[in-house]
Amino acid sequence: MPRKLNFSSGPAVLPEEVLQRAREALLDLDGSGIGILEHSHRGAEFGRVLERTEAAIREIGDIDDTYAILFVTTSATHHFTMVPQSFLREDEAADYCHTGIWSGKAIEEARRFGAVHVACSSDPDFAAVPTELTWSAAPRYVHYTSNETIYGTQWAAPPIAPAALVCDASSDLFSRPLALANHALIYAGAQKNLGSSGISLVIARRDFIETGRRDLPALSQYRTYAKEHSMHNTPNTFGVYMIGEVVAWIRDQGGLAAMAERNARKAAVLYDFLDQSKLWRGHARPGSRSLMNITFRGATRQLEEAMLERAEERGMSNLRGHRSVGGLRASIYNAFPEEGVHRLVQLLDEVERGAASA
Amino acid sequence: MPRKLNFSSGPAVLPEEVLQRAREALLDLDGSGIGILEHSHRGAEFGRVLERTEAAIREIGDIDDTYAILFVTTSATHHFTMVPQSFLREDEAADYCHTGIWSGKAIEEARRFGAVHVACSSDPDFAAVPTELTWSAAPRYVHYTSNETIYGTQWAAPPIAPAALVCDASSDLFSRPLALANHALIYAGAQKNLGSSGISLVIARRDFIETGRRDLPALSQYRTYAKEHSMHNTPNTFGVYMIGEVVAWIRDQGGLAAMAERNARKAAVLYDFLDQSKLWRGHARPGSRSLMNITFRGATRQLEEAMLERAEERGMSNLRGHRSVGGLRASIYNAFPEEGVHRLVQLLDEVERGAASA
Repeated sequence: MPRKLNFSSGPAVLPEEVLQRAREALLDLDGSGIGILEHSHRGAEFGRVLERTEAAIREIGDIDDTYAILFVTTSATHHFTMVPQSFLREDEAADYCHTGIWSGKAIEEARRFGAVHVACSSDPDFAAVPTELTWSAAPRYVHYTSNETIYGTQWAAPPIAPAALVCDASSDLFSRPLALANHALIYAGAQKNLGSSGISLVIARRDFIETGRRDLPALSQYRTYAKEHSMHNTPNTFGVYMIGEVVAWIRDQGGLAAMAERNARKAAVLYDFLDQSKLWRGHARPGSRSLMNITFRGATRQLEEAMLERAEERGMSNLRGHRSVGGLRASIYNAFPEEGVHRLVQLLDEVERGAASA
Repeated sequence: MPRKLNFSSGPAVLPEEVLQRAREALLDLDGSGIGILEHSHRGAEFGRVLERTEAAIREIGDIDDTYAILFVTTSATHHFTMVPQSFLREDEAADYCHTGIWSGKAIEEARRFGAVHVACSSDPDFAAVPTELTWSAAPRYVHYTSNETIYGTQWAAPPIAPAALVCDASSDLFSRPLALANHALIYAGAQKNLGSSGISLVIARRDFIETGRRDLPALSQYRTYAKEHSMHNTPNTFGVYMIGEVVAWIRDQGGLAAMAERNARKAAVLYDFLDQSKLWRGHARPGSRSLMNITFRGATRQLEEAMLERAEERGMSNLRGHRSVGGLRASIYNAFPEEGVHRLVQLLDEVERGAASA
């Protein structure tokens, strides 16, 4: 079976070179005679995997040792809980930027632990990142979602805020240079730009971690992961390996600046087409457009369904928009090939011309 | 590199047939043209993986629908918290059987949430499963560790208890027929007999799940996993796939009865040798001996070190005992080949004869 063009929003397409290397590692990691899934997490071989993964992350992200790199066996959703549970006390407030479904879930969860002030909101259409932000008196931290996977919007730059930033960067981490300044903690589920599902990457300032509550179970405290190099319990060893391979691939492609350039070029091909189209229309407004998840609608439901059907016939999968938004969504993360975007545009154009001449 | 004989206690050796299939699935799952790591967890293809995995588990374990099958993205350690957090209230007591390091950690964690009554203990040498058990007046549940990975002891049968059993079966689930009766909840990290690390399998009575607290974050409640088929958040999709493949392999090998027979035969080879040896001595006492993790000591530290060195030369890895116990440990889970145990015994014998004639 030839590989399909996979527009999935996550888990998502991975670089084929990385998958080929992973195939070898399944039976034999680095010539050790034991596969990556079978190595003890306490052994020297996995120790080297952990070390080189962290080193590659620090290299491409230009991250110094004031930040800890943590691998947490969970998805981003669990951090919606872990962050306020650790850092928000009942008599404190945290400010949240509300830009879509994911920030909504994060806000709901934070309210269990303290006060939440919604500093800005793009409700109800979530078509743009808010420009008017009003902060509470003394927020404990400011939480934002750098890229909204479902609505297809993205912060061009982090918000300028009066407190340390906490960022859910699940769907755009390492798709562009890391704007680490002012961030206390960044978390990201790995299954979009970083690797496989079932693991998340956290980049957090060590001094911020130390301000977290100490009376929680060990695995609910970020400090446990920082102190014990993510090895308090058995980590998702394959997940760590995959992140290491993907990050090494990013480095070999020229790093985050090269990724950003390529991602901008890929997204422009699609947005340019949508902007001139008479029947297809992008959802996100210019200035807020995601380079990762491009959401768009057809003039009619029939047109959308016809397009989805034709796409499947041409080996293009997972273009249906999220159930809460409808329409189509093309997720074109780092590993999505440039040529694939051209093929998509070609088909959108074909369907449009077909409809026009029908 | 030829594959080594891997005696690791976990992550541990997996069936080579399963690894070969996983290699194919990395690039193309079931002829879908998309790899297992890249499939959306909401797509039809992963849906089928989840369904067949659950079906295979129910088949080999003979588990009816009064039990839910849950896939939780975490290691067993996290269940040390999740179980008492959900099921133990401050004014209640749970009874715990203390048979080693893992039960010790589970007890410590449970004390955060309610009273813990230690119903039995094999402290300090942890060489046998206790036979004298004293229960508290009305335990909320009774927790035990079916197999002690570090000390190498195993319950031949579940304790007879006055309350629903909760079992940490991380290192022997599916190594023998499942004695499900009287169990409210069984949890197991997958990285020993079930697959890769970063995921745990839970088998829990639906009515017991419903007795758990409702005021916890969604991911801390077992009912969330039961209600949403382990899909509340993105699961460890590869982990689910691997469990499915390993369980299908168990089924193809003849199921749990065949596994038990083979595991008993494998362990007997090693225990029989240890029992007749003058220089090697098993740690666990007969009647409590683990068929999964066989712990033993040499007459001297030098003998142990000589053995470990020779073993590495012969391609036998990970035989060093846990740092808290010392000596040697041979973990011989389901996937460990019978011939490998014979090779180990042969070398132990060689080293013994060498020492005797020196």
